[in-house]
Amino acid sequence: MSEFLAETTDLLRRTPNVIRALLSGLPESWGDTPDTEGGWRPRDVVGHLITAELDDWIPRAERILEHGTSVPFDKFDRFAHVSRDDDRTLDQLVDRFAQLRSESLARLDEIVSDADLDRHGMHNALGEVTMRELLATWAVHDLDHTSQIFAGMAGSRDADVGAWKHYLGILLRRDDPAAVPG
Amino acid sequence: MSEFLAETTDLLRRTPNVIRALLSGLPESWGDTPDTEGGWRPRDVVGHLITAELDDWIPRAERILEHGTSVPFDKFDRFAHVSRDDDRTLDQLVDRFAQLRSESLARLDEIVSDADLDRHGMHNALGEVTMRELLATWAVHDLDHTSQIFAGMAGSRDADVGAWKHYLGILLRRDDPAAVPG
Repeated sequence: MSEFLAETTDLLRRTPNVIRALLSGLPESWGDTPDTEGGWRPRDVVGHLITAELDDWIPRAERILEHGTSVPFDKFDRFAHVSRDDDRTLDQLVDRFAQLRSESLARLDEIVSDADLDRHGMHNALGEVTMRELLATWAVHDLDHTSQIFAGMAGSRDADVGAWKHYLGILLRRDDPAAVPG
Repeated sequence: MSEFLAETTDLLRRTPNVIRALLSGLPESWGDTPDTEGGWRPRDVVGHLITAELDDWIPRAERILEHGTSVPFDKFDRFAHVSRDDDRTLDQLVDRFAQLRSESLARLDEIVSDADLDRHGMHNALGEVTMRELLATWAVHDLDHTSQIFAGMAGSRDADVGAWKHYLGILLRRDDPAAVPG
């Protein structure tokens, strides 16, 4: 296995453990605030990651392998979690994500090898992409959304830090993305 | 114990586990990129968290308890890790942080109870602050810097995601903090 494939799957295997360490059994007061106004609470982020396991990464890898550039990817619903997850607890969502990620990685191992990394597919909006780009994006998408969870959690304590807010970029950026801490 | 104290220490206990899940045994290629130009690599962030355990949180809590507002906090060196940690591996730094955090929480439990939360201290630059604000800031500081680790890790894959970068805020914001993903 190439370094690229080994190191990408290394990261993908970490994410459920990171999210579990951060969210499993979390006191409710840490989880009820979105990352920005109108943004996502931790449970929304985990819901979105669940959707991506179901509809995005493996289905798109399969599309590349089966159809190359001739059939574009299906459009991905970034808000599919909104009503779907209403009756699930945060812990249930974390477990569900971990289970789906484990299945995705088993499937990835079955279907994608180094020889496939330069195969091309057709993104419905972005045009031609490669399997390598899809897998790198999967990993960075994990990092992007996991870090979004931290912003919501920090936001839940916005009123508690007093004058220190001046130094806390994660809070300042919720109000102004270009804010620079003092 | 009040909800505030219980929920704040709950978060503080999580951070070493989150950082371990994210960084322990990490392939080197994921760890060599700073969060922004001139910013911090994951190992720099962990070094800064180590400094804060040594010089910031518990020493300041003790200062409040011993001197109230009459003796201001000592200034905190945000770059103390820079030469100190050169000969330590990332895994060694993660272990060191976990050990120090465990000691900090044991000490916190010894010295701070609910009755102390409204005691006042004097920040060297910000003026009067409370014990409650110090502890809330400790937790948000964890979240702020842990999320910084994700930005560096994502940055290490900036060249690999191709056109998808357009959708990945965590990469776009490394170039322009106000960037909004497509």
